[in-house]
Amino acid sequence: MTTDRLARQIAFVAEADKLKTILRRTPLTDNSRQENSAEHSWHLAVAAMALLEYAPPGTNLLRVLELVTIHDLVEIDAGDTFAYDATAGLDKAERERAAAERIFSLLPPDEGARLRGLWEEFEEAQSPEARFANALDRLQALLQNLGAGGGSWVAHQVTRPQVVKRMAPIETTLPAVWPFVLEVIQNACASGLIRE
Amino acid sequence: MTTDRLARQIAFVAEADKLKTILRRTPLTDNSRQENSAEHSWHLAVAAMALLEYAPPGTNLLRVLELVTIHDLVEIDAGDTFAYDATAGLDKAERERAAAERIFSLLPPDEGARLRGLWEEFEEAQSPEARFANALDRLQALLQNLGAGGGSWVAHQVTRPQVVKRMAPIETTLPAVWPFVLEVIQNACASGLIRE
Repeated sequence: MTTDRLARQIAFVAEADKLKTILRRTPLTDNSRQENSAEHSWHLAVAAMALLEYAPPGTNLLRVLELVTIHDLVEIDAGDTFAYDATAGLDKAERERAAAERIFSLLPPDEGARLRGLWEEFEEAQSPEARFANALDRLQALLQNLGAGGGSWVAHQVTRPQVVKRMAPIETTLPAVWPFVLEVIQNACASGLIRE
Repeated sequence: MTTDRLARQIAFVAEADKLKTILRRTPLTDNSRQENSAEHSWHLAVAAMALLEYAPPGTNLLRVLELVTIHDLVEIDAGDTFAYDATAGLDKAERERAAAERIFSLLPPDEGARLRGLWEEFEEAQSPEARFANALDRLQALLQNLGAGGGSWVAHQVTRPQVVKRMAPIETTLPAVWPFVLEVIQNACASGLIRE
């Protein structure tokens, strides 16, 4: 017999499948299609494992992996908000809060509260783990656009000040990685992929 | 200046992007397309977080999340091997070993060895964490086929004994979830999605 608790957990796992249909503005590096938020979340987990040594001292990798796994689930209802779209960003918080309410409530209450707490922690970007996860979120998008030869930078005519501002969490949280980011931006500007 | 160490780590993270183009036989539950191995790996992380309480006593969630994140990376070179294809399975180990050699060698040696060890741990399926991860790998495919109304069961005329055998790690590792799996198989047989 399947208990009600297990049935709710299974329903949550099944619901998560929908994140695979939420498309981001960044492409795959082979430019074959846009990236979706589920595979993007996985890519952050890979990045967290590979780049942990640059994270703030004491960063707990388990927490980081939990944060990146959960951080975009609300997009199942709220959709992906393009990083460089100031207008769409206005009601983002409200849309995502309603989504969190519905999606985490699929789980048994104790587990739903725990996972919702992880999502809020990522959004608040205060803990070392949430700061690291947010910095990786920025870095991964940069790598996708770089690998794809421009990606959303070109498609949306993004400017250098916009990219530098967007990447700022890397400067503060992953200072050892910042010179690499500046170099990428400099080269992308020089070759016209990012507008001056 | 970007150190050689960081450059190798970044190259590994960029390479991982390719797993998003490796297609599995299982569809998304909306049947819009086949699932890829990157988003599948993410889905296992979600399942691990939601279903941890059913794992063997003492299962370390950090280890589980690392295992599921890494477990399919070798498919970038080796491709996905269909679970119900005995012939393709014959040279799977060799193809995947060569892939592991190349892909994990992109990283600095210490990190490459660590991640390769995780992949081997998953493959050996002996530790509680690897057994849990393997059981989730089976369960997630079942949920995809169930949600999609048949998926690879129907497309490849899979039989009940094949599915029961494939799901066996759930019986031993997640006994509390096994009745649910048997119920799904029973219903899928009754409605003709799985052949008797």
